[in-house]
Amino acid sequence: MATHAAHAPTPELIFDSLQAYQRTAALRAAIEIDLFRAIGEGRNDVESLARRCDASERGVRILCDFLTIQGLLQKSSGRYTHTPTSAVFLDPQSPACIASTARFLGSPMLRAPFESLAQTVRTGRTALPGEGSVEPNNPAWVEFATSMAPMMAPMAGPLGRIALDGLRGPVAVLDIAAGHGLFGIEVAKQNPEARVVAIDWPAVLDVASANARKAGVEARYETKPGSAFDVEYGGPYDLVLLTTFLHHFDPPT
Amino acid sequence: MATHAAHAPTPELIFDSLQAYQRTAALRAAIEIDLFRAIGEGRNDVESLARRCDASERGVRILCDFLTIQGLLQKSSGRYTHTPTSAVFLDPQSPACIASTARFLGSPMLRAPFESLAQTVRTGRTALPGEGSVEPNNPAWVEFATSMAPMMAPMAGPLGRIALDGLRGPVAVLDIAAGHGLFGIEVAKQNPEARVVAIDWPAVLDVASANARKAGVEARYETKPGSAFDVEYGGPYDLVLLTTFLHHFDPPT
Repeated sequence: MATHAAHAPTPELIFDSLQAYQRTAALRAAIEIDLFRAIGEGRNDVESLARRCDASERGVRILCDFLTIQGLLQKSSGRYTHTPTSAVFLDPQSPACIASTARFLGSPMLRAPFESLAQTVRTGRTALPGEGSVEPNNPAWVEFATSMAPMMAPMAGPLGRIALDGLRGPVAVLDIAAGHGLFGIEVAKQNPEARVVAIDWPAVLDVASANARKAGVEARYETKPGSAFDVEYGGPYDLVLLTTFLHHFDPPT
Repeated sequence: MATHAAHAPTPELIFDSLQAYQRTAALRAAIEIDLFRAIGEGRNDVESLARRCDASERGVRILCDFLTIQGLLQKSSGRYTHTPTSAVFLDPQSPACIASTARFLGSPMLRAPFESLAQTVRTGRTALPGEGSVEPNNPAWVEFATSMAPMMAPMAGPLGRIALDGLRGPVAVLDIAAGHGLFGIEVAKQNPEARVVAIDWPAVLDVASANARKAGVEARYETKPGSAFDVEYGGPYDLVLLTTFLHHFDPPT
């Protein structure tokens, strides 16, 4: 009997799938009310969390319990604390915090197509208007450049080393669809004679330029606004970075 | 090192949570284009699935691959087949199919509040207009009565036996917030002298009455339309069913 029961299919996976969107909503809500910061500050009872987050006790209690089941908080004797995961990746006080990625990953451009996914499957193309995510000057890429940087930052150092591969002296670098610009900026940091030309939509380049200033490499950081398919690249270049670009296009493109 | 790596937190759970809504969307899309029926009919290559579902090959291929990762299909040599779970619970040819529950579980009433969950946590009450799910005559309960019946059906038999507990002869049964009516109907099927009075919103009772007719107990099935808080119950009753009701209210109510 036990053997039979272990192998009999159950509807669990189906209900889990049909309600999986609630897990996304719970994490987004917790980030939005700044719950993980409050937990990190040592507030761990419902009353003080609610006060700190300007939220109802009832709402905070139910949300924290749900996050505990999800593995994103721990609960003991009615008090909530960080899990190792939430401490490192969700508390804004942690240098590795990636909570901001929720803004891009939860942006209308990424979420809206899933509201009518059957239509996308039927047609084989995006349900978004125009060219969708690759529409010229799509403002979503400003959000990408801003909020996804913390996720990309840990990769920038190693990628810079691989790309430079010990190359010293003057190096001309082209960063196509630079986004946050972190990869080209890292090359400029690792090689003090490297000069970077970054291509992206104008508003996105504002984010990359700000990051270049923060990194102190703005004097060797040039921007060329426009479509990567149309802009005059200039050159010649010793290095071309093409990091967050190709996966947006199908093979014929 | 291996031990350290096993214990070091990773952002996996966070990205999984932020994108969990895509699993809901994939299953809903597959049900909507009737993919599980097509698979059950033995179509298992992308081309014939796309033709049967009136969808693009590209869309069907990507969706089927995603469902395979999700454990809701199997893929071998480029061909897709049911998993034990999808065969039993998602193929409309299966008597245990619960695919219709996606309609209620994916209805605007259930999904919309999660679009603004932070607001709900802040206020401690639904972001839906009016009384939300318990608003009088909320049409969502018609969808509930229609699409959730397959999920409730397996419970109706055992529940009827527990509720009747061997009671024979004339039994007066009150079914409060009857919904699909399956529980009261089951009592009427198990005891041929039982008479059932069902209370719910008028449009919902139409669904329950139709189910009573299908079960052949309509002559012993009476309906009283209105709010369970206001309707004159009549009586006395030997049995009161209160199955899909109390969890919608807070303790003070």
